[in-house]
Amino acid sequence: MENNKRYEAGKQAMEELFSQEVRTGMEEIKKVSPDLWEMIVSFGFGDLYSRKTLSFAQREIITLTTLITQGAFDQLRVHLQAALNVGLSKEEIIEIIIHCAGYVGFPKAVHAMGIAGEIFKESEETHNK
Amino acid sequence: MENNKRYEAGKQAMEELFSQEVRTGMEEIKKVSPDLWEMIVSFGFGDLYSRKTLSFAQREIITLTTLITQGAFDQLRVHLQAALNVGLSKEEIIEIIIHCAGYVGFPKAVHAMGIAGEIFKESEETHNK
Amino acid sequence: MENNKRYEAGKQAMEELFSQEVRTGMEEIKKVSPDLWEMIVSFGFGDLYSRKTLSFAQREIITLTTLITQGAFDQLRVHLQAALNVGLSKEEIIEIIIHCAGYVGFPKAVHAMGIAGEIFKESEETHNK
Amino acid sequence: MENNKRYEAGKQAMEELFSQEVRTGMEEIKKVSPDLWEMIVSFGFGDLYSRKTLSFAQREIITLTTLITQGAFDQLRVHLQAALNVGLSKEEIIEIIIHCAGYVGFPKAVHAMGIAGEIFKESEETHNK
Amino acid sequence: MENNKRYEAGKQAMEELFSQEVRTGMEEIKKVSPDLWEMIVSFGFGDLYSRKTLSFAQREIITLTTLITQGAFDQLRVHLQAALNVGLSKEEIIEIIIHCAGYVGFPKAVHAMGIAGEIFKESEETHNK
Amino acid sequence: MENNKRYEAGKQAMEELFSQEVRTGMEEIKKVSPDLWEMIVSFGFGDLYSRKTLSFAQREIITLTTLITQGAFDQLRVHLQAALNVGLSKEEIIEIIIHCAGYVGFPKAVHAMGIAGEIFKESEETHNK
Repeated sequence: MENNKRYEAGKQAMEELFSQEVRTGMEEIKKVSPDLWEMIVSFGFGDLYSRKTLSFAQREIITLTTLITQGAFDQLRVHLQAALNVGLSKEEIIEIIIHCAGYVGFPKAVHAMGIAGEIFKESEETHNK
Repeated sequence: MENNKRYEAGKQAMEELFSQEVRTGMEEIKKVSPDLWEMIVSFGFGDLYSRKTLSFAQREIITLTTLITQGAFDQLRVHLQAALNVGLSKEEIIEIIIHCAGYVGFPKAVHAMGIAGEIFKESEETHNK
Repeated sequence: MENNKRYEAGKQAMEELFSQEVRTGMEEIKKVSPDLWEMIVSFGFGDLYSRKTLSFAQREIITLTTLITQGAFDQLRVHLQAALNVGLSKEEIIEIIIHCAGYVGFPKAVHAMGIAGEIFKESEETHNK
Repeated sequence: MENNKRYEAGKQAMEELFSQEVRTGMEEIKKVSPDLWEMIVSFGFGDLYSRKTLSFAQREIITLTTLITQGAFDQLRVHLQAALNVGLSKEEIIEIIIHCAGYVGFPKAVHAMGIAGEIFKESEETHNK
Repeated sequence: MENNKRYEAGKQAMEELFSQEVRTGMEEIKKVSPDLWEMIVSFGFGDLYSRKTLSFAQREIITLTTLITQGAFDQLRVHLQAALNVGLSKEEIIEIIIHCAGYVGFPKAVHAMGIAGEIFKESEETHNK
Repeated sequence: MENNKRYEAGKQAMEELFSQEVRTGMEEIKKVSPDLWEMIVSFGFGDLYSRKTLSFAQREIITLTTLITQGAFDQLRVHLQAALNVGLSKEEIIEIIIHCAGYVGFPKAVHAMGIAGEIFKESEETHNK
């Protein structure tokens, strides 16, 4: 049953990282490829996020950085939300993007900061409801 | 004198991050372009690393991740040393690379882990002297 | 007249790969730069796709992989259609994307799978008309 | 007051490069992160664009090329306008994109040419008003 | 015991793909991080390569393409050998690289072809012994 | 005979760009794949470099920029020589790399500047003979 454990660990990690709404959106992939979905949960979140040594907040620093560097701005959106959920502050997220500017150049940093602005706004609106 | 301050802040950051030997190696660039060197120190290390909100250890998590993602393995070498210098443990560095595997794919993660192995070995030899 | 032959070979390859609708969309480029259009047809499809040794299906495996790897998701759309047109099955395309996950990381694989889901749906709707 | 000078130099460069409308759009970033905005103006446009040795037109050749190569198509849009503003002709811009095709492959070149077509059209409409 | 099965499947796939010498070289990673090694075998080769739907030869077409596209030329070396081992001909490998030229540009294609030339030579020398 | 003309135009462009020694080195590719070689000469240098509208010096600005952006440092070496051969000054080349720093980040700019330093030194030694 070890594979079940990997899947369960992944599901649990995803619940800490993402809102129900985001998780429902991510599950769309399951309809196209149940196998890729299984890998995302068991490997991506079960094997990787559930490991020790680094906190979820540290893992999101890594995730935001790699997404900005590779220009994966769609996925950046949900991981900016995840970063807020696991305790990174707005100021820390802004700082990550600024640090990246020197390493990946301004175009990607500016693009990321624009998206961060949108996510921060959405997040405030949700909390003010 | 503000630009002097930026340069001084950068130099100080570099002293915390890199050994004398590494800094001497980096200064080779100064002979080719004193202007690029000035920007590296004043902007890269003065404006960016010397900012608050994130620690040097957190900044090296970002730097290692972006270098692995863009395949900048030459610069990875000196930043693996910097990461150790500012207090990231061998285990945390390994964990950063493993987390990256899911986001950038195994070829770059494996390449990075090979270099990390070399740097860890050099670092132990230095400490055992 | 050799250049005419290259252009003719390219046009013929494009007819096998793309629907009339897609080809009309691609020709928009011709209005901006007739020269780039000529190169796309003569070099891209004439010189490259019309070569022997690999089948169109094998060439689309290569094309899908490189587009996913470089994050060229706009072009991925038309080449997913082309892949279906030259005989790759839905299952094979899904498998290509899953294989890529290990080599380029999950963010790009997930993005690609989402688009593949859309193309598969469009393709079924067309066939059910 | 040297930092003021860097900022002023940057603002002046931006006025030559971008229309008022574009600059207002870019300033949105300032609301999310005044610090990143300051770096964009002082470092990006003050330290870099305001240097001697290369003209603004030559600098836009570099900028267009790097944006096409890294697939930063959002920023490409404003820099295509900037390229026209500092005197590159429509023909020269098309030629830059064609030259890139051999170095970055056709998918990114085609994507860039499509956007160039849109910008050229907008630019003509503005001039015909 | 399912995880054991994944590891065993991975080991078996690696034996078909790589020579003993290459596998010994790859195992160096195990000394730095036994966990990354376990993931490479269980996930990379167990979960991915051991799946159905695509043959090993088709999987190596994908792998070569993504490595060329991302400029991972170190890993390209061992996968060129793997491609030969699982039955791709020298001519087919050359053809993959040529097809890539149009999609990733000539610099990476030329770099890949140079390495392919070296691997072909080594392979012939081994067979002539 | 049109294809012959493309090849001849390409060969002529290469003679202006590269020294005899560099061209001999490049021709190594011909032994691995005469077809890729033919494309490099006829398409890369015949169809692209031999076009009008941009000078060879302007084309090398584009080429250096794209090679730095994609991290193709092997090819950068020969194109730095080509840039000097077609009349770009050492100062202009340094300036191109500095401008790139803001767009691709410092790691690639520093790497490029290191190589530029080597090429400048070689070039001076050749001229002092």
